[in-house]
Amino acid sequence: MPSGTRDFSPAVMQGRKYILSVMETIFVSHGFGAMETPALENLQTLQGKYGDEGDQLLFKVLNSGDFLSKVNEKTFQEKDSKKLATQIADRGLRYDLTVPLARFVVMNRDKITFPFKRYQIQPVWRADRPQRGRYREFWQCDIDVVGTQSVVSESELIEMVQEVFFRLDLGVNIRINHRGILDSFLPILGSVDNWNSFMIVIDKADKIGKEGVIRELEARGLGMAVSAWNWLWDSKSIAGNDAKIALAESASMIQGSALQKALTDTKQILNLLGSTANVVLDFTLARGLSYYTGMVFEIELNDSRLPEDFRLGSLGGGGRYDNLTEIFGLRDVSGVGVSFGLDRVFDSLDAGTLFPVFTFNQHAVLVCAMNDSCLPFAVNTARALRAAGLHCELYPGTPKLKKQLDYANSNSLGYAAIIGNEEREAQKVSFKNLHTGTQQLLSIAEIIQALTLTK
Amino acid sequence: MPSGTRDFSPAVMQGRKYILSVMETIFVSHGFGAMETPALENLQTLQGKYGDEGDQLLFKVLNSGDFLSKVNEKTFQEKDSKKLATQIADRGLRYDLTVPLARFVVMNRDKITFPFKRYQIQPVWRADRPQRGRYREFWQCDIDVVGTQSVVSESELIEMVQEVFFRLDLGVNIRINHRGILDSFLPILGSVDNWNSFMIVIDKADKIGKEGVIRELEARGLGMAVSAWNWLWDSKSIAGNDAKIALAESASMIQGSALQKALTDTKQILNLLGSTANVVLDFTLARGLSYYTGMVFEIELNDSRLPEDFRLGSLGGGGRYDNLTEIFGLRDVSGVGVSFGLDRVFDSLDAGTLFPVFTFNQHAVLVCAMNDSCLPFAVNTARALRAAGLHCELYPGTPKLKKQLDYANSNSLGYAAIIGNEEREAQKVSFKNLHTGTQQLLSIAEIIQALTLTK
Repeated sequence: MPSGTRDFSPAVMQGRKYILSVMETIFVSHGFGAMETPALENLQTLQGKYGDEGDQLLFKVLNSGDFLSKVNEKTFQEKDSKKLATQIADRGLRYDLTVPLARFVVMNRDKITFPFKRYQIQPVWRADRPQRGRYREFWQCDIDVVGTQSVVSESELIEMVQEVFFRLDLGVNIRINHRGILDSFLPILGSVDNWNSFMIVIDKADKIGKEGVIRELEARGLGMAVSAWNWLWDSKSIAGNDAKIALAESASMIQGSALQKALTDTKQILNLLGSTANVVLDFTLARGLSYYTGMVFEIELNDSRLPEDFRLGSLGGGGRYDNLTEIFGLRDVSGVGVSFGLDRVFDSLDAGTLFPVFTFNQHAVLVCAMNDSCLPFAVNTARALRAAGLHCELYPGTPKLKKQLDYANSNSLGYAAIIGNEEREAQKVSFKNLHTGTQQLLSIAEIIQALTLTK
Repeated sequence: MPSGTRDFSPAVMQGRKYILSVMETIFVSHGFGAMETPALENLQTLQGKYGDEGDQLLFKVLNSGDFLSKVNEKTFQEKDSKKLATQIADRGLRYDLTVPLARFVVMNRDKITFPFKRYQIQPVWRADRPQRGRYREFWQCDIDVVGTQSVVSESELIEMVQEVFFRLDLGVNIRINHRGILDSFLPILGSVDNWNSFMIVIDKADKIGKEGVIRELEARGLGMAVSAWNWLWDSKSIAGNDAKIALAESASMIQGSALQKALTDTKQILNLLGSTANVVLDFTLARGLSYYTGMVFEIELNDSRLPEDFRLGSLGGGGRYDNLTEIFGLRDVSGVGVSFGLDRVFDSLDAGTLFPVFTFNQHAVLVCAMNDSCLPFAVNTARALRAAGLHCELYPGTPKLKKQLDYANSNSLGYAAIIGNEEREAQKVSFKNLHTGTQQLLSIAEIIQALTLTK
């Protein structure tokens, strides 16, 4: 199978479904509705939305049929992969869930009631180099509120992140920042280009450290920003979000209405939260994507039960985007969203063996028929148990009992209902508890009663 | 967006999730475990498994980076789309869920306990011409039992189909046949090639009718099979499955051990079913795919509540395959499976307005804050209601009450908890029933009590 892709066996799916059910329960309780978009999008929709690097990571789908017939001879003879691709591939695979949401909102603007709250849980594809925590086909779980500028939404989304990880019992920090704070460094940088480069460099701080950032700033001719960077970095060590806000309010280096708005928003968001214990204001947090305009957040693993060498990128993140639908022709629609990385959440719970024990099969029954003439009664038994709401399988075929019980044990089934000639004649079954090994001759009604009580 | 693909809005997703939850509940109660495979498969895995037509319908994914660099100059100059594709596309999109299952079973043969019962619900892609009921990206819901030859599995799968449509309250017939019956016509056809052509022609009977089949048989030089076809067609009008079996047992035209085995299997399968009311033995049922070797079935809409002009292909189908894993190097693994077409089931329920009324939101509460100073109490109210297990949204922002209530009505929310200055001071909310219009001043505890009782 292709590198960077995976099969999910039934055992793995149990864990994935557990995570998703925790998330979906929370999403729905907050009034978010499920939505899905196609895996195939027109490349026109996707290209130019994720920066140059993103464009290179898009999976392109070859046009069907005689795709070369539409290629003009000149382009063909140039033998340039990039140019040729534009003529032989009109569609690509979804790269994230945010751009498809923007397309959906613009296409359905007249039918949607705003604010529009949707969640979307689907795979996305990126032609990246696979490594730990990075796959070519991976799942995003996105929640977005589109069509409101109220910071009540930022606060609600942060609280939903808190709820998700509280219920999953996985320790995280939620780092937050406001683009308005970083925007206020624009006068120091002198130009938007410089400021964009500044963002790209400080985004690497997690990897290259404080000094690494300074070296790269100087190498890029951004020496004027070194003191700004020092200020940002030093603010990380100030304890407490309130103290950081006070620091920014009194900073001589940055001023202006963007900063004031950013700090007011931030204070209100923190104020509306039930708990800010795991919310860390971090002025250095930049977030790569250029479409963010307000608050940004990133979910960072912080759980001492995980192995020390277990390192992974963020478990998710998001932020506010004021202009995302503009590129599709709809202005003045502000949105804010968070994306959870299902695979990294799974990998984290797995690395710490933090999944609950799935006891699901412990109440399930395997019906074992000892010969073909017992099959009709065995089928009826299984049907009756299922009609009573129990999980019940009939072993397909009638091999030796040992083989049938091995199957039950391999699948951690709790009980076996064994039917041989004697049982069939008595219209009862030998009901065996596979945990304890005890066995009793019971009627179907008695089994139902026993299992409904223990469940 | 690409032709043949669709967005699923929250309203549509309610219906899709309803169908899936009915199916999954039944699959799980029969001991099937969830499994998933990647959308991207190596083309090597997919090609040659679905016939020539299938190969042409595969979506191919362009290799990343400078994909032309590996193309040899000669192939390039031939400008042949098919040949070039083999050098610039190594991966393709999943075409069905059966071949990926076979690949999975072979790759994990040492870890799997057989019989292996899995269900898989995922989209598949086919570059077909879109039309009613036919999409380029559509969902299959597959259940398979791999690693047993017991016809108990055929019987269980048919019963699961019956259960699914019973719970969905959608009328269907399940047409069944056994390849062994069709195999017994091999001596009449004279060669395997002729027999394969015969299968292709009779597979069109639904579209071209009895006479159309005869014309096409003659045109293909298969005149020797006309009487066989007449016998097959005439058997359709015999009432009752038992009478059809009796007819086949006494037929002078077909004989031999394959026929005997087919009829014995068929009798046993029918005998194990709880009800055969909607199971129709149809000797003309061929099923396109060449990998079937035993029982085949097809799910056919049969519901008088649907508009008369509503025509759709089958809602699903399946059969037994004895050699599916052989092509991946694992012999003697027999399997049997059914595939449901989620989209066609949805379209059928939709066409007949047969979905239940989703009353989900009728118990949900919208918390409306009248101004910013009411927001903290409003947030606390929403949090408390959710903690009690209720669905509760806080309107993001504080526009006029009318706008907030319009939102509640558009989303069919049942209640509004309105919080202005008076309510905030009293630490109570004006709780409005949006169905009846009545309004009361209640504490949070009183709301929880009231809603928990009505739920």
